[in-house]
Order: sequence, then C-alpha cells, then structure tokens
Amino acid sequence: MINKLCEKIRKTNAPIVVGLDPMLSYIPEHILKDAFREYGETLKGAAEAVWQYNKAIIDATWDLIPAVKPQIAMYEQFGVEGLQAFNKTVDYCHEKDLVVIGDIKRGDIGSTSAAYAAGHLGKVQVGSKTYRAFDEDFATVNPYLGTDGIKPFVDVCKEEKKGIFILVKTSNPSSGEFQDRLIDGKPLYEHVAEKVAAWGEEHMGDAYSYVGAVVGATYPEVGKALRKIMPKSFILVPGYGAQGGKGADLVHYFNEDGLGAIVNSSRGIIAAYKQEKYARFGAEHFADASRQAVLDMIEDISQALEQR
Amino acid sequence: MINKLCEKIRKTNAPIVVGLDPMLSYIPEHILKDAFREYGETLKGAAEAVWQYNKAIIDATWDLIPAVKPQIAMYEQFGVEGLQAFNKTVDYCHEKDLVVIGDIKRGDIGSTSAAYAAGHLGKVQVGSKTYRAFDEDFATVNPYLGTDGIKPFVDVCKEEKKGIFILVKTSNPSSGEFQDRLIDGKPLYEHVAEKVAAWGEEHMGDAYSYVGAVVGATYPEVGKALRKIMPKSFILVPGYGAQGGKGADLVHYFNEDGLGAIVNSSRGIIAAYKQEKYARFGAEHFADASRQAVLDMIEDISQALEQR
Repeated sequence: MINKLCEKIRKTNAPIVVGLDPMLSYIPEHILKDAFREYGETLKGAAEAVWQYNKAIIDATWDLIPAVKPQIAMYEQFGVEGLQAFNKTVDYCHEKDLVVIGDIKRGDIGSTSAAYAAGHLGKVQVGSKTYRAFDEDFATVNPYLGTDGIKPFVDVCKEEKKGIFILVKTSNPSSGEFQDRLIDGKPLYEHVAEKVAAWGEEHMGDAYSYVGAVVGATYPEVGKALRKIMPKSFILVPGYGAQGGKGADLVHYFNEDGLGAIVNSSRGIIAAYKQEKYARFGAEHFADASRQAVLDMIEDISQALEQR
Repeated sequence: MINKLCEKIRKTNAPIVVGLDPMLSYIPEHILKDAFREYGETLKGAAEAVWQYNKAIIDATWDLIPAVKPQIAMYEQFGVEGLQAFNKTVDYCHEKDLVVIGDIKRGDIGSTSAAYAAGHLGKVQVGSKTYRAFDEDFATVNPYLGTDGIKPFVDVCKEEKKGIFILVKTSNPSSGEFQDRLIDGKPLYEHVAEKVAAWGEEHMGDAYSYVGAVVGATYPEVGKALRKIMPKSFILVPGYGAQGGKGADLVHYFNEDGLGAIVNSSRGIIAAYKQEKYARFGAEHFADASRQAVLDMIEDISQALEQR
C-alpha cells in the first residue's frame, strides 16, 4: 500500500491528501435539506448529509489526488449512523482507487491495540469466518504508550501490506507542552521520531516504510529536522491551509525524489466554497470549488518543490 | 458524576470497576452458539454474543460495584454492529445505575476533540434537535497533544457534569519508553500529572475533580508519587489481576478518606471462570464466577486499605 501511495503520487503529481472531515456547518443547505426531508433531523439524517457531501467532493476531485483522509471523529459523533457513513465513504473511495488514511489516532496496548488494528486495517475472526469492519489502508496512531501500543498495528500491517502514521509533532499551538520538552538535550518528538524510524525498518516497502509519521505543517523547522531522522518514513502533514501552513514552508518535509511527504488539507478543500477566493462557485457548486482548491493546492506545492 | 462515583464507592465499599472488554475467546460456547444460531457467524452474531455475555456479567455483579469500564476497541473491531452492542451495554449499565467509564483513549485537537467529546460525553446538534450518540459518564483521553486536546473535553464535561481520565502512566511494560523519560529532572508522567492537576482545578466536584488520571497498578511507587501531585484527581488504575497488580501494591493510590482511586479488573473478572481458582463454577455459570471474583477483589483491596 505504501508502494501504491508512491505510485499514485507520481502519477497525479500531487503529494496531497484531501481530509474528509465533514462538519454539518460546512454542508450546503440543499444537501442538508434533502437529507432531513428523507430521514428527518436525526442521526441518520446527519449521516446521510455527510455521505452525500463527501460523495460530491470525491466525484469532483478523485482523478486529481492519490489519497483521502477521513477524520473518524466527525462520523463517530453521530454514533453508529455516522460510522455507517464513514464506511460508505471508505468503500466509495476504494471504488475510485483512492488510498484511504483513516485518521483515527487510536492508541492502546496489547490485545486492545490488536483489536483496533484488526478492526481498522485487518480482519476479525467470527467463528469460522473473517470480516473487515472498517477497512482503511492506513491509520494514524498515538505513540504515548510506547512499543506495546505500536507493535500490534505493525503486525497487522505486515499481514495486510497496510501502514500507519504515528503522531510525532502535531500541528496545534499547544503541541509543544509535552512534545517539545527536552530529554537528553533533544525534544521528545525527536525521540519519538527515532522510534518511528526503528519500527519502520521492520516493515519496508520498495523505497519507503509502511510506518510513517505525522508532523504538522505549522512547524517547518521541525519538519526539516525530522525528515533527516526518519529518511524512509512518509510524513503525513496536517495544518496546511486553514491552519496556516503554506507550500513554501513544506519543501523540507520532502526527500530529493519528490516523495516522502503527503500534505493534508481538510476545511481548505471541502469547505472551499465558503472562502472569499472561491465564493464565485456558490453553495450549489461547492464540489467545483473543492476541485479548484485542489488544483490550487497542487500548484502551490509543485511550485515550491520546483523552486527549492 | 464524580460526586456520584464517590457516593457509590462509599455505598458499595468497593473502589473497583469491572472492565467490560469482551474477547470472543472469553465467551462461553453456549452463548456463542445461541448468537450464531440466531445471526450466523457474522459481525451481528459476534455483537449479539458480546452483548449477552456482558448482560449476564452485569446482572451478576451490578449490586456489588460502583462502575464499569467498557473498552471500546473490543466492540469497534466488529464495526457498527459491535458499536451497537457497546451502546446496548452502556444503556443497560445506566439502567442498573452504574457509572460508565468509556475506555476510548481518544485524543485529537480543536474541533476534532470537540466532536469526540460531543459524541461520547455530550450531545450533537442535528438541525433543531440534539442527540446523544454514545453517552458514557467518563471517558479516557490521551494527553500527547497538550491542552488543545483536553480543553474541548473539559468544556463538554462542565456542561454535562461528566468527567475524563487522562493517561498519565500506563500499566504496560513499554510505558516507560516515553513516559519515564526525564525532563528537567522529572519523568514526563509527572509533568503530565501536573497538567492534570491544573486542568482539574477548572472543573471540581465536591471533594474531587471531574478530571482524573490513569495510572497503572504495575508501578506502585509511581502511584504513590502521583497521588501527591494530583491530590484532587481520581486515579483510574488498570493492571490489577491479570496484569500483575495486587491490592497491597495499591494502597498509596488512595487518599486517607479511602477515596481517590478506582481499580479496574477486566479479564480477571469477566473471564474468571477460565481461572483454576474459579473453575468449579464451569462455563455454564461463568457469571457466578465473575461475581465471586468481584467479591474476592473487594476483599483483597479492603484488607490492604485496612492494614495500611
């Protein structure tokens, strides 16, 4: 799957991922209205609106991009109905041959971590049968519990040729409270990055490891340092666009081969029609606005990479 | 809800929580058979078996205990069907007036953390209506992302009079990889504990804060130190029983008032019938074995507290 991700990035020339993090406040009135007419103002109605919104955005962007990153919290808040919309979204993205990064940020230990890994990346056994519950291609994982929390994911990833992105340095303002604290003269996030590199050696694709890292776009200098510590790990980069990151800030997250990083934008793409820049599309044509925002993001990052 | 937890602990004289972490391998043959007969060897069949197993254990133990802690991974691995069993379990525990600690270990930032908080502890807005998706009383939360990840949970907890337990020092062997590293001469987990104490001041119950901590039973000396750093925080203690912790190790997790800690046992209670000690009950009477294991655990901890 990491090889597929590399191949798709090369083919689209777009090292980007569209974050499918639908908030009801992003969804245009006409979609909400249709969904509520059919199912009422219920959790099922909300889930239907989320699904129709996602589908339109996927239809308008899938040929331009290698991957999507649905943020499961945005579905989970609507309970099992919401998670059904999550599943529909994942399945539809697979139909469009997109790589699906489940932004689930799970993290536990032993058999519990194994259950998350089985549920999101692998198979569960029920009597003599096996099933895939959520079936993403990659998942994000929290490192706070150490190797015991990561190993069960890596084991499932090996079987399934799937991967994980481990939180190293997150994009939020308070990420430094613990992640930046110095341990033996180096910030905690560098210690985590060293572990990511070590865990990653256990499960390599052709050029990159199946074990990647999350490093926020909002700390470019950190990205530069971490790129060197984890040369074989793909870096998933949140924080572009709405959170403040720009293409020019991100060149050092990439290796010389133009690979090694994949930049996420969520709100900046899926709610593009709400920005002044794309207001001309109007709410009716929100998906066209998303397509234009994807094109602009690809241009921004390509230019930055060419000029480095 | 923290006041209710204190009151129920006093009434039952049992500072314990039963971890409802059902693995299919724990579930007696007769329950699996019935569930598979009704729904086949499907995710729905697995979910039904999990629910029937939980229900029997709750029926056999609810009058002895203040709280339960379902581990959501064990349900999530069976997809939306599994999460329906999670919901049924939470609702049934509420019918029995048990405090429900959702062991979800979520952790994200801003609107994403807010979505998890709304989905598990609060309400989501759909048009003019509001709904509760999962509706636990407490949730476990990962601190790696700092205040941005915690604050949205605390905000919802204030509205709902609910609480969280933040991972401070986990019970697993590799928990020290990051958590024990020294920062300014103190381990990371102490820095996290100081934050827990500070966050906790923002949302106090009568004697204890709604913001608690998770500290593993497997590191008694650490528990002693952390008790002092977070005097007003309840400590949720995993790792008793199957993971090696004993009552005598845990006395320093408690305050002088006999409160301040709640000790979890999962496998040791719910799969008690598989232990030699309780084999006499047999698989048919697994729930009676669980009841006896609860009584023995209460006795072990009470004795330890009396002898301190």
